[in-house]
Amino acid sequence: MILKRPIYEIENISFDNNDLMVNETVFHNANGYIGVRSNYEEGYPEGFDTIRGSYVNGFYDIADMRQAEKLFGLVEDKQTMLNVADSQTIHLIIDGETFSLFEGSAISSKRWLDMEQGITGRSIVWCSPAGKQVEIVIKRMTSFYQLSLFTIEYSVKALNFKGKIEFLSYHYGEVSNYSNENDPRVAKESGKYLIPTQALIEDGASYLTSQTSKSGLSVCSGVQHKVSKNSSINTKIKEHSAITMIETFIDENETLTLTKYTVFSDSIRQKDCMANAKSEMEKALEVSIEALYEAQREYLKDYWENCLLEIKGDDDLTEAVNYNMYQLIQSVGKDEYCNIAAKGLSGEGYEGHYFWDTEMYIEPFFNLTEPAITKNLIGFRHNTMEQARENAKILGHKKGVLFPWRTIMGTECSGYFPSGTAGYHINGDIAYSVISYYLATKDLDFIADKGAEIIFETARLWMDVGNYYNGSFRINEVTGPDEYTCMVNNNYYTNVSAQYNLRWAVKFYELLKVANKVTMVANRIGLSETEIKEFNEAATCMFLPYDESLKINPQDDSFLTKKVWDLKNTPKDHFPLLLHYHPLHLYRHQVCKQADTVLAHFIFEDAQSMDTIRNSFAYYEKVTTHDSSLSTCIFSIVASKLGMEEKAYDYLGDSAKLDLFNTHKNTKDGIHTANMGGNFMAIVYGFAGLRIKENGIYFAPAIPKVWEEYRFQINYEDSQIKVEVNAKESIFTLVKGSLKQIKVFGNDYELQNRITIPNKH
Amino acid sequence: MILKRPIYEIENISFDNNDLMVNETVFHNANGYIGVRSNYEEGYPEGFDTIRGSYVNGFYDIADMRQAEKLFGLVEDKQTMLNVADSQTIHLIIDGETFSLFEGSAISSKRWLDMEQGITGRSIVWCSPAGKQVEIVIKRMTSFYQLSLFTIEYSVKALNFKGKIEFLSYHYGEVSNYSNENDPRVAKESGKYLIPTQALIEDGASYLTSQTSKSGLSVCSGVQHKVSKNSSINTKIKEHSAITMIETFIDENETLTLTKYTVFSDSIRQKDCMANAKSEMEKALEVSIEALYEAQREYLKDYWENCLLEIKGDDDLTEAVNYNMYQLIQSVGKDEYCNIAAKGLSGEGYEGHYFWDTEMYIEPFFNLTEPAITKNLIGFRHNTMEQARENAKILGHKKGVLFPWRTIMGTECSGYFPSGTAGYHINGDIAYSVISYYLATKDLDFIADKGAEIIFETARLWMDVGNYYNGSFRINEVTGPDEYTCMVNNNYYTNVSAQYNLRWAVKFYELLKVANKVTMVANRIGLSETEIKEFNEAATCMFLPYDESLKINPQDDSFLTKKVWDLKNTPKDHFPLLLHYHPLHLYRHQVCKQADTVLAHFIFEDAQSMDTIRNSFAYYEKVTTHDSSLSTCIFSIVASKLGMEEKAYDYLGDSAKLDLFNTHKNTKDGIHTANMGGNFMAIVYGFAGLRIKENGIYFAPAIPKVWEEYRFQINYEDSQIKVEVNAKESIFTLVKGSLKQIKVFGNDYELQNRITIPNKH
Repeated sequence: MILKRPIYEIENISFDNNDLMVNETVFHNANGYIGVRSNYEEGYPEGFDTIRGSYVNGFYDIADMRQAEKLFGLVEDKQTMLNVADSQTIHLIIDGETFSLFEGSAISSKRWLDMEQGITGRSIVWCSPAGKQVEIVIKRMTSFYQLSLFTIEYSVKALNFKGKIEFLSYHYGEVSNYSNENDPRVAKESGKYLIPTQALIEDGASYLTSQTSKSGLSVCSGVQHKVSKNSSINTKIKEHSAITMIETFIDENETLTLTKYTVFSDSIRQKDCMANAKSEMEKALEVSIEALYEAQREYLKDYWENCLLEIKGDDDLTEAVNYNMYQLIQSVGKDEYCNIAAKGLSGEGYEGHYFWDTEMYIEPFFNLTEPAITKNLIGFRHNTMEQARENAKILGHKKGVLFPWRTIMGTECSGYFPSGTAGYHINGDIAYSVISYYLATKDLDFIADKGAEIIFETARLWMDVGNYYNGSFRINEVTGPDEYTCMVNNNYYTNVSAQYNLRWAVKFYELLKVANKVTMVANRIGLSETEIKEFNEAATCMFLPYDESLKINPQDDSFLTKKVWDLKNTPKDHFPLLLHYHPLHLYRHQVCKQADTVLAHFIFEDAQSMDTIRNSFAYYEKVTTHDSSLSTCIFSIVASKLGMEEKAYDYLGDSAKLDLFNTHKNTKDGIHTANMGGNFMAIVYGFAGLRIKENGIYFAPAIPKVWEEYRFQINYEDSQIKVEVNAKESIFTLVKGSLKQIKVFGNDYELQNRITIPNKH
Repeated sequence: MILKRPIYEIENISFDNNDLMVNETVFHNANGYIGVRSNYEEGYPEGFDTIRGSYVNGFYDIADMRQAEKLFGLVEDKQTMLNVADSQTIHLIIDGETFSLFEGSAISSKRWLDMEQGITGRSIVWCSPAGKQVEIVIKRMTSFYQLSLFTIEYSVKALNFKGKIEFLSYHYGEVSNYSNENDPRVAKESGKYLIPTQALIEDGASYLTSQTSKSGLSVCSGVQHKVSKNSSINTKIKEHSAITMIETFIDENETLTLTKYTVFSDSIRQKDCMANAKSEMEKALEVSIEALYEAQREYLKDYWENCLLEIKGDDDLTEAVNYNMYQLIQSVGKDEYCNIAAKGLSGEGYEGHYFWDTEMYIEPFFNLTEPAITKNLIGFRHNTMEQARENAKILGHKKGVLFPWRTIMGTECSGYFPSGTAGYHINGDIAYSVISYYLATKDLDFIADKGAEIIFETARLWMDVGNYYNGSFRINEVTGPDEYTCMVNNNYYTNVSAQYNLRWAVKFYELLKVANKVTMVANRIGLSETEIKEFNEAATCMFLPYDESLKINPQDDSFLTKKVWDLKNTPKDHFPLLLHYHPLHLYRHQVCKQADTVLAHFIFEDAQSMDTIRNSFAYYEKVTTHDSSLSTCIFSIVASKLGMEEKAYDYLGDSAKLDLFNTHKNTKDGIHTANMGGNFMAIVYGFAGLRIKENGIYFAPAIPKVWEEYRFQINYEDSQIKVEVNAKESIFTLVKGSLKQIKVFGNDYELQNRITIPNKH
């Protein structure tokens, strides 16, 4: 056992509709390719709301998104993640009585997630209205070993009777997306996108193929059943769906198990998805379900070894953080055809779109734990360069690429450009992520292959968007991370990020030149040395706003001239502000939705003195609402940096528990993947002060009073380093790999085996 | 005859579809209450596009306007002007052959507009396929004398035969609005809004009533026919429409005349519109059509006497300017239930919405010609104060009113707020118009009754939107007149306009106090003297951006730091820029759609020195595209002010001929009323240098070389003044009213009868 509490479980399940919806998210299964919400196999009574969903990462259709007024270049359609064929439904009929938690009585019931086994489950002892008692155990898995595979293992034990058992198992091809026209965070148009095209039965398995309405894609799902005892099994197709009827008899105390295998295949990745679904089904059935479980365990054993994180003295937090890391590996794409959605594969919030969250909140985690995943995520961006080039053209640029603010397949899906497309910092963020991956791995081959092209093309865009004025290089009319302040000039975050991007374009050019690897990429994109010189000059001349009287970096040119929002007298029920105030009113005030300059002070900390960072932090603290779930973790990290570990602890607060406790009231629409990465960051980059820079790896560990100890393990280049911090000291252990130079509190140490360093103050 | 060329006519009518659509607009009839496009009575063959429309000013339905992303306060529905029942269609059948210009042959054909008679017409000599020749004369009138009334007088003369004549005359109740989903300037949703509810025949007249789908309004139209000779007349109702069949015989050289009367009545103005339609019909039929024509002539005789404008040496221009003045009186609302739409009542462009055009481009004309109309227009704004108060609240303001950027009944209809609702200067514009009306008329009673309330409430809004910073009063996050630069801080135009608004709030308070008229309005809106003091202070401290090095007023805080748009190298077919560039790209550059600071330099000329105005003019000239039809007239006026009358003449150019020659390629959607007012202004305020200020009326006449002389007549307070300017001198004549002090080139003169003053240089 690696995890302190490998199993998260809840007992005596609430029948409150909202709790049920939240748990559909919390207990969902996913593996980065497919995701299945945790809907009851037996369904819900009339009147219960449920989001019944199965998703394939990167699989989308085009949805209409008409603008109220048509203007050149405004986005008029968007990609939307599709709810694909549903294979969750299984009705259990015991001597004519249909099992439902809403009838008869549940003697006991629990739902659980085993994060070491990679399995979710329900365990129920149920007494039917006629008094028949059964113990039902249902295990679900989306396999990390075979990404196309989702299994349900449904066991029934007759406790006080013998009799007839029937299963009615469904494979629905008629599915649509969830919609809610009043919530800006989910699709508002009711969504029927998939058109069933083929349904057949082969070797007892049903295969359903559907086509998207506009994007020209297709998806196939296959379902097969195994029963632990000789039974009558009969599958038939009815209107684009398959129904399997299973009949057998059960003895008292006998356990009967139905195993339902579902495989998915899509036309983005496969030429012939039905053929592929069949061969995936064959592969799944070749081995026993136990062997599949074993493979799942093996995968997770490796994973947890890479991302150990434990807080002694706060088991709840440890559990929450581990839950989050589990969700991240469930959610993140495992190939270059997809990425990680804001809600992972757990729900339809934000329509399955990928945001800057990937680069700024999730890759920092994978860089330290599974850098191969970061490589895929960057690979995805590289795959969408053409769309980003087209996007730049639409925005009027003559060169470079502009990555979309939100997307599935690479084109912009942001309907409201002032807090969408105008967020040009997405370019800087993607460049930053390439650089961070390089610094963590020193994988120059990948830079030559893909990374440098991203860096050069984003650098080019800055050259086109910016202009010299009074000798400094300015970037006008963009939106920084803070969405309560839009379309401003010289957003500090954007400018410092562009500077970093430009500088590294120069650095990579030199590095690749030295390694004899620059010619190919330079030729491919027609890059000249003159441009490199221009990059360098713009970086040097980059205007970074600084206010002499406050001694802070203003968020942008005009931020400080605006009215300060009266947060103290804003009614509590008026948060988040975006749901209660007109954008113009928000933009007119000094009020921030989230860390903006403060985020810059974390990731580009060397751009300013400690004093400026301290002043800025204090200033923005007073005007930030943290209405975004991407905010408090960053404030926590910077508080740590400034030596305020108790404040850092307060900022961390319960945010790691956001989804487990549904603190934002929208977990029903899916988990918050960026927040999950952010919490990891708040501990590792925050309390432990980890930084990976050009000249090495830095630590500056501190620990909040209430914790006894915390420890984590990270990958760095070819090594693995374990860090344990207690109230007095920090212990660094080289778990594997070659000797490393590390910097702790600014001092250099050689880490060959194990070093112990006393904490500061 | 007052007009040089009272009749505008075109002969040998083109069958080009686009020309036909343009002429539907150019020859439309309207009277400020109803408008009817000039569609052929006999219709068009299949495949011809036409916008067949009849409109009632202020009559609207609610149309859906969904936002691509939902944000608090964004407008999600809009008012749209409705196409109401169509009574234009009359088929003429001559011995079984149906008249159509697209069959047989037109021996001669012309369309004409008589601006003194107030009548449009078509005159055709037509030879049928079988060789029968007829002379057809069709006259149309929308009566200024009886606003509800539209008449068609249809005469046929048999030239070479005798035989049977039939008329099939329609009164259609099933109508819908024109839509074009690719043009941002007309509605993109196809529009079926009116639901027919009642159709009946009474005394041979048909009455059709319809209800709007959402706005809860209804409209009734009545149609009656008179024939000059005994005929069989038979009217029947068929599916919400009425068809009248008329049969008679004609002798060779005999003329037969059908007169078709249509009346409209709506539920905004009338409790029972059908009853009202019937009584309006009765009224129309009481007198002969000749008497109605006579009343029309009388109305226009008065009108032309008030707005005489003639340019000797340029008859085409004189004609165009007179055409424009004719359109203005046709288009402008005659009661407080409506206003003047951007396209008048001539088409569905901009959906019948009212904009700031009213206050800044049209009232300056009516102030000098028919100030009672300005009073109505301001009355309309006053009527919509409650909606403006609600709008201010939606925008987050705690006090004051914010008038809508575009509207029919007072609520905001702007779907894209950055160049819509953010144009807070609409408030300053409306305040300015109240002040201008007062200065032209000294009508303090109206100020006490309505004007002051507008001034105080708009002043209050500035107090709420603005804030003090470094001792000056700032206005952030608004859009000035130039829609290529949005959501900026301290737009010079907006700030100087707010300053004027605030100053006049103080002045009117004092004036009304002295006149013992302040209590009622102050009580009604709870206005305190403390607020007046605050208005005064904010006006005094108003921040007006000024650039020391260029010695100009920058358009806003950051305008000058942006890249200058390369207009010289922009392809000609990329204008107007808004149809070819993303808003962010436009906003990021120094490029103006229209006069902004230059407009401020005209209407608030005393705020800056002549040198600053000269520098500003030269600067903005280089970065302005004049993509808006509201721009060149203003540049012309300021060029005149700066003594550059040849440049002023160039700016005036052909813009007065915009609609007659369809130079903007969208006259099919309606005339450009603001441009029409603007051209008048360019002559009267521009070349003649007219200004009406607190301390009197100013002139500074100049004349472009190519003109021999120009003359115009204006109302001022209780007097009428005629101005004649030739190359050497200007002659001022007091046509009627009391003696006036006038200022010419800065010198004071007493105008008792007639003064002649030599021109400058």
